[in-house]
Amino acid sequence: MSNRLKSQIRIAVVERERERALLIVDGLAEAGDFDVTVIGDDTGLARRLEALAPDVVLIDLENPSRDMLEGLAIATGTTERPVAIFVDRSDDEMTRAAIEAGVSAYVVDGLRPDRIKPILDTAIARFSMFSRIRRELDATKAALAERKTIDRAKGLLMSARGLSEDEAYGLMRKTAMAQGKKIIDVANALVTAADLLG
Amino acid sequence: MSNRLKSQIRIAVVERERERALLIVDGLAEAGDFDVTVIGDDTGLARRLEALAPDVVLIDLENPSRDMLEGLAIATGTTERPVAIFVDRSDDEMTRAAIEAGVSAYVVDGLRPDRIKPILDTAIARFSMFSRIRRELDATKAALAERKTIDRAKGLLMSARGLSEDEAYGLMRKTAMAQGKKIIDVANALVTAADLLG
Repeated sequence: MSNRLKSQIRIAVVERERERALLIVDGLAEAGDFDVTVIGDDTGLARRLEALAPDVVLIDLENPSRDMLEGLAIATGTTERPVAIFVDRSDDEMTRAAIEAGVSAYVVDGLRPDRIKPILDTAIARFSMFSRIRRELDATKAALAERKTIDRAKGLLMSARGLSEDEAYGLMRKTAMAQGKKIIDVANALVTAADLLG
Repeated sequence: MSNRLKSQIRIAVVERERERALLIVDGLAEAGDFDVTVIGDDTGLARRLEALAPDVVLIDLENPSRDMLEGLAIATGTTERPVAIFVDRSDDEMTRAAIEAGVSAYVVDGLRPDRIKPILDTAIARFSMFSRIRRELDATKAALAERKTIDRAKGLLMSARGLSEDEAYGLMRKTAMAQGKKIIDVANALVTAADLLG
């Protein structure tokens, strides 16, 4: 791994069966120059992946259960990296569970060595697109929550000290600057104090 | 179509080649009881799909270009319904473009009649998951924008008429009730007027 090139994509292959693992590794070797690590035993999978920090995780399952799929989705961290799961069979409900768990590619009965590369491409593209919209959602939610807190803190100051809206905001800003904090921190402190003090 | 059962999934298959269209229709017939319409000529595709209102669109392309993919994604309405695209070949960039255009399943060299059903399942699941997060994002953005507008309108009233924050809000609410409007409509009117009047 120390010889790994900077541009090389690092792939963790989770596969219990040695035969199928070799098939996948061969398929990947033919498709490009990847840094492939095979994980044959998924005990402590989350920790191993944490240490390995692969760019993408490829899981092959012969006959999964819904619990198994959801457990693997959590262990592999579908919000942190693209995870592609190949299964031999599935049904509507299991498929839905996998997608809802954030799996970036869910492929039923489609493990053919020469098709692995395009599937990884779509998994990576989908992951990055989905991460972007999720980050945007998180940022928008945070902005809305912040605005609500600052408004509430402003209202508290206005009624407690008979200030105008501008004066209340100015006081929070001055306090934040004096304490080397952000306005939202001061507002949070005010709201918490008000809740505590009734 | 008038005999369509309520639970039947309505699939529009966009396929220029008659041979391949038959292959797909046969594959779907074996996989379940679907209401399938084949569109052989994609002129006026957007309008035809509007009229057909399928639950899912399946497109098969032998040798697509990036422009073609993006055009089809727009014509089929990837934000309105799950769209699955099968292509014979692709590259990283084209794959990324398809995913970014909102395609719910992008399958390279994987059109095998018996695999169509599971691919449609994942496309439908992915579309519904993605729609949910997009709706959540839209609603959060709207709430944030609304809050900003109401705050600005409140500020305008406070300084123009020397009102307190509560009084300004109360006045907007009273006006909204009297006019059978929402507070955000009144706030929007105030902000627009202030912008126009300088």
